[in-house]
Amino acid sequence: MAYTIRVPSHGQTIAAEKKDILADKLQQAGVPLNLYCNKRGLCGKCFVEIVTGRRPDPGEREKFWLEQKDLSADHRLSCQYEVDGDLVVNVPVSSTHENVPILPSIPRSAVVPDPAVKKYYLELPKAEISSPDSLFERILTGLGAKSLKIPMETLKELGHTLKEAGQKVTVTVHRESQVLAIEPGNTLGQNFGLAVDVGTTTLVMELVDVESGRTLDMEAALNSQSRRGADVISRLTYALAEAKNAAELRELVLETLNQMARRLLLRNRISPASVYEVVVSGNTAMSHLLLGVPVETLARAPFHAVFSRLPGLNAREVGLSIHPHGVAYFAPNIKSFVGGDIASGLLAVRLADRSGHFLFLDLGTNGEIVLKAGEELIATSTAAGPAFEGA
Amino acid sequence: MAYTIRVPSHGQTIAAEKKDILADKLQQAGVPLNLYCNKRGLCGKCFVEIVTGRRPDPGEREKFWLEQKDLSADHRLSCQYEVDGDLVVNVPVSSTHENVPILPSIPRSAVVPDPAVKKYYLELPKAEISSPDSLFERILTGLGAKSLKIPMETLKELGHTLKEAGQKVTVTVHRESQVLAIEPGNTLGQNFGLAVDVGTTTLVMELVDVESGRTLDMEAALNSQSRRGADVISRLTYALAEAKNAAELRELVLETLNQMARRLLLRNRISPASVYEVVVSGNTAMSHLLLGVPVETLARAPFHAVFSRLPGLNAREVGLSIHPHGVAYFAPNIKSFVGGDIASGLLAVRLADRSGHFLFLDLGTNGEIVLKAGEELIATSTAAGPAFEGA
Repeated sequence: MAYTIRVPSHGQTIAAEKKDILADKLQQAGVPLNLYCNKRGLCGKCFVEIVTGRRPDPGEREKFWLEQKDLSADHRLSCQYEVDGDLVVNVPVSSTHENVPILPSIPRSAVVPDPAVKKYYLELPKAEISSPDSLFERILTGLGAKSLKIPMETLKELGHTLKEAGQKVTVTVHRESQVLAIEPGNTLGQNFGLAVDVGTTTLVMELVDVESGRTLDMEAALNSQSRRGADVISRLTYALAEAKNAAELRELVLETLNQMARRLLLRNRISPASVYEVVVSGNTAMSHLLLGVPVETLARAPFHAVFSRLPGLNAREVGLSIHPHGVAYFAPNIKSFVGGDIASGLLAVRLADRSGHFLFLDLGTNGEIVLKAGEELIATSTAAGPAFEGA
Repeated sequence: MAYTIRVPSHGQTIAAEKKDILADKLQQAGVPLNLYCNKRGLCGKCFVEIVTGRRPDPGEREKFWLEQKDLSADHRLSCQYEVDGDLVVNVPVSSTHENVPILPSIPRSAVVPDPAVKKYYLELPKAEISSPDSLFERILTGLGAKSLKIPMETLKELGHTLKEAGQKVTVTVHRESQVLAIEPGNTLGQNFGLAVDVGTTTLVMELVDVESGRTLDMEAALNSQSRRGADVISRLTYALAEAKNAAELRELVLETLNQMARRLLLRNRISPASVYEVVVSGNTAMSHLLLGVPVETLARAPFHAVFSRLPGLNAREVGLSIHPHGVAYFAPNIKSFVGGDIASGLLAVRLADRSGHFLFLDLGTNGEIVLKAGEELIATSTAAGPAFEGA
């Protein structure tokens, strides 16, 4: 038996079968629904108004979100709604991606944010002797997850956190596989990241609201490593001259980056504990020095980097002062001195996707050129000297 | 066009198509081939003798393994062999699971070992300026892997390790996703684990060769926590009496376990760095105390454990002296005081798979009973007192 779903708000008429999930049908028809929690009924972001049609009793979480969001009683979570008759629904702008604010001053690709780190607010039922699930099991059930990794520290504090918070907590999850934090109360929306450009001469850091994709603020500073050599080659030479030098260079750049982060966060009244991600883009020498990875093989023929792609790293282990279980990503070095800064640049302008011939120039202290000839991209890199930095 | 593969060694005749992979066909026909590296041509364990049929030139790694294993020139790796004609092949016992030795003295389920931790020996080509792949990229290519996690320490030592070892290294990988170690030279076969029963009164530890599944040796000792209470309840009472007590209990059991491991490894001339896994089975109180997880919620009504299932933990973080990036698994606690010891017991006797009614009794210092009535398993637990331990 086929039913019809009319969506006047989006000028759509959609065919559906009994038991179809409303969110699936809306999504397939191209309605830009916000499906933050992947249709698990947890985030309360895909409410639609049931103008005509069955309105089943809302579930526990649905009731909670209806109240929190002050929505009228004819709203239902589309990800929890099973079709069993003709429908007319209204999809409010607040339930779609259309309301994603994009900073107007900086040209950027319109990316629909789908953050790697998500927050879920849980109000757990009172613990009962008749159903003695473990505390972490209760969290997993609340998240609709089968299994997640969790830091030992967070696990050890869990009993205390739940008790203090009256079983009302916000769980921060990385890529639906790793718990990063369990905080008392509702901290939804407190979910920030830092985007960092580690240049040979200049450091730039943006504070980003990862839920909206909006850049909130930025800082720039000189790379204090410069006093130990103005260009990449002299920096590497210094690093290799004495055993302690590489560690000093690492300290210098980390100290400046952590100062910049502190200024950004203070100015925007954001706690470092609400910053769960840092993305670092830099050339091969900068990323190796920042991570304290030896540069011997990079500095001498045949000029091999130690790493190109790295998985997400623990931010604390890297030395960045954000949430202690936060994640640091490094833009992949391509090969040798053609580094992560170029990889980021190519991605930002989507060079590989463009048809035709292009020359991509990065004129910094270290200079790179990428030639796109048809399908092929050819890259090279050189220490251009500090000429372009005004030295 | 269909071909025929005759396998006199296993009394099989198999139909195949052009381009079929020989290992796939043998596996489908039920020949118990050893496919350690998942048919990536890395481990050299699935050689077959091509009695009649095409013998293409062996690849680089194939040549290496032919020489290492001193096999005749008509052997080929079945996972790299594309069928393109009729074949007669002989599958040597050394390429099958049939040669897995099982310790005769202890009755155990015949499990074909498929270790979570595997070792791969790589001889990397000399680094060339014309192909400046990063060092870690070279390792990934050698492993036929797209991406793996790697500890920062291991990454930082990588340049040194490769240079010292003349580019010949053994890479230890956990679940095909995480590098645990990169060692100079060929250390294949040095791959061990510890299986630990943390009882309230007694600790038992087995040293296992995880490649063969064989138990090599064992140790037993008294749980030195006993001086702080003979049964689970008095142990928990002690843990809660003063803030420092839980930490003391943790230290006590860890110290004994590490002594036991040291004795086992010394006696068998195995380095702690060759032990990559520990499996710990214990009741809920024992696993919480060992991990330093607070027991407040477990000790008092409504008796909730903090965790039941845990993902693999870093052994060093747990406090066990094996390889610093080794993995510690804890048997899942079922609910409240029905703990991981019972979960292990039920798994060992495969109670859930048996038809009929059973009573499963664990008569230790903490006693548990599981009743299997048809499809249902009902469990309970009590502090039975040290009566059964001879006290």
